[in-house]
Amino acid sequence: MIPRIGTLPSGSFDAITDVAGVTVGHATLDDGDVQTGVTVIRPHAGDSFQQRVPAGFAVLNGFGKSVGLVQVEELGLLETPIALTNTFSVPAVAAAQIRQCIAANPECGRSLPTVNPLVFECNDGYLNDIQRMAVEERHYLQAFAAAGSDVAQGAAGAGRGMSCFSLKGGIGSASRRAGTHTVGALVLANFGQLASLIVAGRPVGRQLEAARQDEAEKGSIIMLLATDAPLDARQLRRLALRAGAGLARTGSVFGHGSGDIALAFSTAYTVPQRSDAPMPAVALLHDGLLDPLFQAAADSTEQAILHAMWHAEAVTGRNGHARPALRALLNRLAS
Amino acid sequence: MIPRIGTLPSGSFDAITDVAGVTVGHATLDDGDVQTGVTVIRPHAGDSFQQRVPAGFAVLNGFGKSVGLVQVEELGLLETPIALTNTFSVPAVAAAQIRQCIAANPECGRSLPTVNPLVFECNDGYLNDIQRMAVEERHYLQAFAAAGSDVAQGAAGAGRGMSCFSLKGGIGSASRRAGTHTVGALVLANFGQLASLIVAGRPVGRQLEAARQDEAEKGSIIMLLATDAPLDARQLRRLALRAGAGLARTGSVFGHGSGDIALAFSTAYTVPQRSDAPMPAVALLHDGLLDPLFQAAADSTEQAILHAMWHAEAVTGRNGHARPALRALLNRLAS
Amino acid sequence: MIPRIGTLPSGSFDAITDVAGVTVGHATLDDGDVQTGVTVIRPHAGDSFQQRVPAGFAVLNGFGKSVGLVQVEELGLLETPIALTNTFSVPAVAAAQIRQCIAANPECGRSLPTVNPLVFECNDGYLNDIQRMAVEERHYLQAFAAAGSDVAQGAAGAGRGMSCFSLKGGIGSASRRAGTHTVGALVLANFGQLASLIVAGRPVGRQLEAARQDEAEKGSIIMLLATDAPLDARQLRRLALRAGAGLARTGSVFGHGSGDIALAFSTAYTVPQRSDAPMPAVALLHDGLLDPLFQAAADSTEQAILHAMWHAEAVTGRNGHARPALRALLNRLAS
Amino acid sequence: MIPRIGTLPSGSFDAITDVAGVTVGHATLDDGDVQTGVTVIRPHAGDSFQQRVPAGFAVLNGFGKSVGLVQVEELGLLETPIALTNTFSVPAVAAAQIRQCIAANPECGRSLPTVNPLVFECNDGYLNDIQRMAVEERHYLQAFAAAGSDVAQGAAGAGRGMSCFSLKGGIGSASRRAGTHTVGALVLANFGQLASLIVAGRPVGRQLEAARQDEAEKGSIIMLLATDAPLDARQLRRLALRAGAGLARTGSVFGHGSGDIALAFSTAYTVPQRSDAPMPAVALLHDGLLDPLFQAAADSTEQAILHAMWHAEAVTGRNGHARPALRALLNRLAS
Repeated sequence: MIPRIGTLPSGSFDAITDVAGVTVGHATLDDGDVQTGVTVIRPHAGDSFQQRVPAGFAVLNGFGKSVGLVQVEELGLLETPIALTNTFSVPAVAAAQIRQCIAANPECGRSLPTVNPLVFECNDGYLNDIQRMAVEERHYLQAFAAAGSDVAQGAAGAGRGMSCFSLKGGIGSASRRAGTHTVGALVLANFGQLASLIVAGRPVGRQLEAARQDEAEKGSIIMLLATDAPLDARQLRRLALRAGAGLARTGSVFGHGSGDIALAFSTAYTVPQRSDAPMPAVALLHDGLLDPLFQAAADSTEQAILHAMWHAEAVTGRNGHARPALRALLNRLAS
Repeated sequence: MIPRIGTLPSGSFDAITDVAGVTVGHATLDDGDVQTGVTVIRPHAGDSFQQRVPAGFAVLNGFGKSVGLVQVEELGLLETPIALTNTFSVPAVAAAQIRQCIAANPECGRSLPTVNPLVFECNDGYLNDIQRMAVEERHYLQAFAAAGSDVAQGAAGAGRGMSCFSLKGGIGSASRRAGTHTVGALVLANFGQLASLIVAGRPVGRQLEAARQDEAEKGSIIMLLATDAPLDARQLRRLALRAGAGLARTGSVFGHGSGDIALAFSTAYTVPQRSDAPMPAVALLHDGLLDPLFQAAADSTEQAILHAMWHAEAVTGRNGHARPALRALLNRLAS
Repeated sequence: MIPRIGTLPSGSFDAITDVAGVTVGHATLDDGDVQTGVTVIRPHAGDSFQQRVPAGFAVLNGFGKSVGLVQVEELGLLETPIALTNTFSVPAVAAAQIRQCIAANPECGRSLPTVNPLVFECNDGYLNDIQRMAVEERHYLQAFAAAGSDVAQGAAGAGRGMSCFSLKGGIGSASRRAGTHTVGALVLANFGQLASLIVAGRPVGRQLEAARQDEAEKGSIIMLLATDAPLDARQLRRLALRAGAGLARTGSVFGHGSGDIALAFSTAYTVPQRSDAPMPAVALLHDGLLDPLFQAAADSTEQAILHAMWHAEAVTGRNGHARPALRALLNRLAS
Repeated sequence: MIPRIGTLPSGSFDAITDVAGVTVGHATLDDGDVQTGVTVIRPHAGDSFQQRVPAGFAVLNGFGKSVGLVQVEELGLLETPIALTNTFSVPAVAAAQIRQCIAANPECGRSLPTVNPLVFECNDGYLNDIQRMAVEERHYLQAFAAAGSDVAQGAAGAGRGMSCFSLKGGIGSASRRAGTHTVGALVLANFGQLASLIVAGRPVGRQLEAARQDEAEKGSIIMLLATDAPLDARQLRRLALRAGAGLARTGSVFGHGSGDIALAFSTAYTVPQRSDAPMPAVALLHDGLLDPLFQAAADSTEQAILHAMWHAEAVTGRNGHARPALRALLNRLAS
């Protein structure tokens, strides 16, 4: 059975979609040397450009090629759904977000400002022929259209070609309740060396490594947090940073070659695009009440990483490269 | 005659190419509603991915959609030439940089890390049909191939459709000597309201505005600085910030809707991509000697903005929108 | 007559105290080699520790020894009045703030958190024997007790020993109206080389310098902004940065040896210290409406710097060092 | 026996003083309600103001009142030894550093720049009567004079009154070898709730808590790293951040009320104060070789925290408040 992190309860999905309104969709490319995809996280069902959710982020290690963070830092708002894909497919997905926004907002870039695409990435080049740049704009639209409450995990969507601790990684999600509020995590896990792997406090990686040769870390992890607590961008940056505590407990030291980025958003209110629209009157959560949410952020992130590996099936891709599933190895260890 | 900023001497081009090795190229699209382009700045003639130059940047206002800055902040290095284009063409140009790097480095994204594209943008949507996303990957390659020491200014390359103080803006460049070192600036100027325009200390905008109706600022400015002084990323961030002093002296207050970003790089040494290559032994300039370079950064930036407007011809583009040239207006004022 | 910056109207004091509730007090030490002091800015008449005002700041150049900014960045709140003094007297003033808070809040540091002192400084060592560390805790209390709406400017309080553009500097203040909101600035001006001085666009420094020998810049400037607009810490950081535009227009390029720091706070609401107290429901100003406030921030800062020099009388201090008044020099120039 | 973290070897002291040249000294105040002190870390035996070591830092949670970080961020250099003390004694220690620098450098603040004091703090108010502000300048000088290679740990120096996971905390140190380089850690540990405590992967806190009542976290941790690897400020900031991974593995989620700050410095070279002195020609370590140092930073920090608790004797202080020793509790658990 899958180990459980911490003592806080989960929502009914034990996924980021336990935060009301949040949905997730995938487009998965699984064709020989092409093992990749797109994952889309929608903060709400409306137009992300018109109804912007507050967001903050923390870059634990900036060896990464995400787009969109400069404006998120300045304005503290998201203007699109969040997209995940492989490193070299970021431009295709960003272009898809721009065109989607223009289609819904014909004055975007004219009387309205330009839209800020938000795309995160990891390098799935071990299993996937990343140089082929196989993801197309339509795959973003497919993932967007598929968004729902049920989150496929493991080798799905952007997680299809990802590796984690030299095993199969990918998409994982989890949630924790902190008092009356929920924190949900979704990760794209593509980091770590096997020898470092810690599962719920147990350094199993050292044992697993005996039978395998390890590689230098060239991975990344994207950690997304959603919450229904009324937080502003400053507080959400604080929350995002706590994903790093969960990450560290899996054995990561935020390796040099890893793009380790955490972003948190709140669904408690939205900020209009138009400056002549009324602003919401928000009573934020007092910072002195954040600790349970910080714990929930760390625990749900650690759990989501574990889920990513637990749910991932073994995948064989480019040049016959293969990544085994964690569960198979743990079973072998136990027997 | 064009007013001269400050008291420091210029190099022979009075352009960023006075920093030895730096070259600039344009691809310009001028076809009815399509008034846009690409500009490429190459720090040196070699492979930017293998021989990385140190760089630092300052975001004065982050209402912008550049790509690449997260990794520049972490590593303090450039891995590609710097590209400038319109906001919605960033993905096409980033994709071009990725493919160019793969072509030169077949192991990019495999045994070598992925490359970090670096593309800056301004919104030229007043003169250009930005929603058409007319820039293609080949335009980046054209601009790259055209790079040389002679810098076309005004309505050239990425500057083709840009507006500045409600007049025609675009590409401008200048240089200043600070002791034995040179600082060169190149700007993509697309910001400002006419009433605020200051030319070499004179608030001419207030006079010019009388005859024209002004618009809300939705522009941006990208300010690039090159220097041959041996500086590291921390020092280059300091230098980049001083471009903001030059910008302020033209009348800007770094408006909310403007992406005002400055980046500085040094050509004094390079850092190898491969970690088994020898590292250069660099004696940096003492921070206590930076003041003349700071003055050069501010002065060359202010001069470059003035050059962008001075050299820009009037352009008529999308829907018959037109931007007059500063020189024409100043002449009218004088007569 | 004193030149007027920009086109926006001022409040009745043309000082930071035009923002309702804000008061300013000085303690001035004027005794031979001791030419220094303390200035206190109170955001409101209540207990700053219990009713905290939102704040944000921008470090244009961090060659400075302020205390308190780490926590302001994390929490976005002030917990004490703002104090200004000379560099080596920061500890004495910080200790005074701690004791004052303990006196009013006997549980500070026990059941309540410790208080975060906030002290800014410039080096007045040219006119003042800074090594004597002459400021004592009682001077902070004197300045606090003296706080009122009428702001003495020039060589008063912390401004007593400060130099600006090699002339006499010190405390200056100004305000600007931006629609229904007010922005007030107060500066401690102690920066600049004479040759660089620009007064309302005129590079008068070059003329004045002919008769005087210039020195290397070792100064600093602290720029404080108050506003009654409902802004949060993120927006106040944006506002604070625009003080830098005003500073640049006086001729500064944010010299290496200068601690150039701007901090902005809002009086529109307060955040309670206790986490069980109700949080205010705040409808923030939409970021799209910030531009007039940005202009007000830049203009009032430039005006405040000019006021600091305009109102400063000539001072002779340590070792007979003397700084002339700007007005005297301008008069000589005019005659 | 004390659990050992990770697989890397230690230096001979298993302390920060394994980095050649680094020394540590304490002054301890142990008198009834006064349970506090000062700890000084000297990067080398020379004058810190004249021979400045490179440094970088990471603020994991900025609920803290340290002084000196603004200038460290700008210049990337230390100018004094590093001092640790209680929150309300920061001013006294900063004043001591200023006077010490003036004594050694009579032109400090005159023809030479002012010195930048660097003092970190935690709130020891549970065991210590922090409001008494009992630390005096002479205690800093005592700790400085006592600096040596042998590091007293636990309830020594600034650690005297600190609590950690509701047990006795304080000063801890450890070191790890990473190839030819050494990374040493020293912590002032004053954070955590008992229920969260993890010792070498084992969540012992949950068991220990059964017998005790827990309190809300109002603590902090200061984590200092020294290395002999040739790194610059940017790289040292990266190294410092990895202390956070070690901290997270002890059960911390960087609680809201905690000032969690990590600072790393290198002893490989120094930068002169005077700008006319020659600059060192430094071949930095390639960033691609940092991973072993990152692992060493995380492991030595986790080990240092464990050492702080392991070596701490039980202390009874203010109002009879007492903190038990971890070892006593673990023994009880085992029996």
